[in-house]
Amino acid sequence: MRALILFACLSVGCLAQRPKPCTSPPLLTGSLSVASQSEKLMAYAKYSYDALGKRIRLREFGSYNNKTFHFDVLLLFRERVMYKINYKNQTCCKKPLSADFHPMEIPRNASLLGQVVVGSSSGPGQGLLVNSWWGELQMKKGPAKYMSTVTEFGCIPVSTLFHASSGWMVTNFFNNVIGLVDPQQLIPPRFCEGAQLEERLDEEPETFFTLF
Amino acid sequence: MRALILFACLSVGCLAQRPKPCTSPPLLTGSLSVASQSEKLMAYAKYSYDALGKRIRLREFGSYNNKTFHFDVLLLFRERVMYKINYKNQTCCKKPLSADFHPMEIPRNASLLGQVVVGSSSGPGQGLLVNSWWGELQMKKGPAKYMSTVTEFGCIPVSTLFHASSGWMVTNFFNNVIGLVDPQQLIPPRFCEGAQLEERLDEEPETFFTLF
Repeated sequence: MRALILFACLSVGCLAQRPKPCTSPPLLTGSLSVASQSEKLMAYAKYSYDALGKRIRLREFGSYNNKTFHFDVLLLFRERVMYKINYKNQTCCKKPLSADFHPMEIPRNASLLGQVVVGSSSGPGQGLLVNSWWGELQMKKGPAKYMSTVTEFGCIPVSTLFHASSGWMVTNFFNNVIGLVDPQQLIPPRFCEGAQLEERLDEEPETFFTLF
Repeated sequence: MRALILFACLSVGCLAQRPKPCTSPPLLTGSLSVASQSEKLMAYAKYSYDALGKRIRLREFGSYNNKTFHFDVLLLFRERVMYKINYKNQTCCKKPLSADFHPMEIPRNASLLGQVVVGSSSGPGQGLLVNSWWGELQMKKGPAKYMSTVTEFGCIPVSTLFHASSGWMVTNFFNNVIGLVDPQQLIPPRFCEGAQLEERLDEEPETFFTLF
């Protein structure tokens, strides 16, 4: 009987060891880089992420078609508005936001690609245990495949590879910390107060919504 | 005077903190994946690396131009020979190897791109401190740029991005362990003993030599 219980416990323990789709911590601050296969898009961004308040701030710069760009957006999904912020000119552009908030997570229907150690498990501080998942998403422009890697401990995003008809795009996350380093980043700056809601121009950065 | 000494010690300490080009451990075993920008080449390999004996074993499979391939090579740089091994048919192809052995290292003249945490530094086991370096290499086909990422602790390879005229190629290393898991991998199998040295056909996998 005791052996049976031990066996049952061990098998449950073993089953529990298999990585499961997970949700990242609700508050995160960090950096990310984005690169497209065609080298058309290369960008670097600092982000603040609040899944409790459904808010994302992105301060991004990079190049698109060999032209540099800079943008600073605050996405407030609950209020369904998006602010494009220009600190230099102290101007603000307020636009409707139709997309739904997607928490940073591995979808329930994702398939486990594998678990690997980045670096080495031979010494302390030399390696990081990560899980890679893949799946398909139904996008406006048709189905797209994704491959997402998160840490085994903490479900911290590491990288996302997104493959659509236009080729693939890779996002690498780094310098993530749990929590909000500056919560004020998620509040519209004072000079945004008077901003009028503008017409939507169908130029929402869909890629970022899908990434998160 | 004491303050001056303290200041001197602190500044030396701070200078010492700046990441320096490093050499990976002389014995490594692990896996790697290679992908080219064009998606022409996608490969996965298990490697054994011995910088003391200047030997590398690569067992690789993947696809090139939508055709799958498999190869198993043992590179003995001291003896300047390379074995192409086929376990299934128990055949062996012995070829001259003209390339020099390149240890896995960050070249002395590489420039530091930055130090980041992959994952998060907020909790134990959630992050990995890595240094990224870049530089130029003079290749047969002209200059090529590289970006190489290694762990801060242990100088374990994480990824290498290699940019030549044909586009870029990315190698990701994972499941590395310090030491040789199976030292026999670096000795030609018995059925290779009778193999005759064949003519060189200029088809050496230059990319791997440059990666290491």
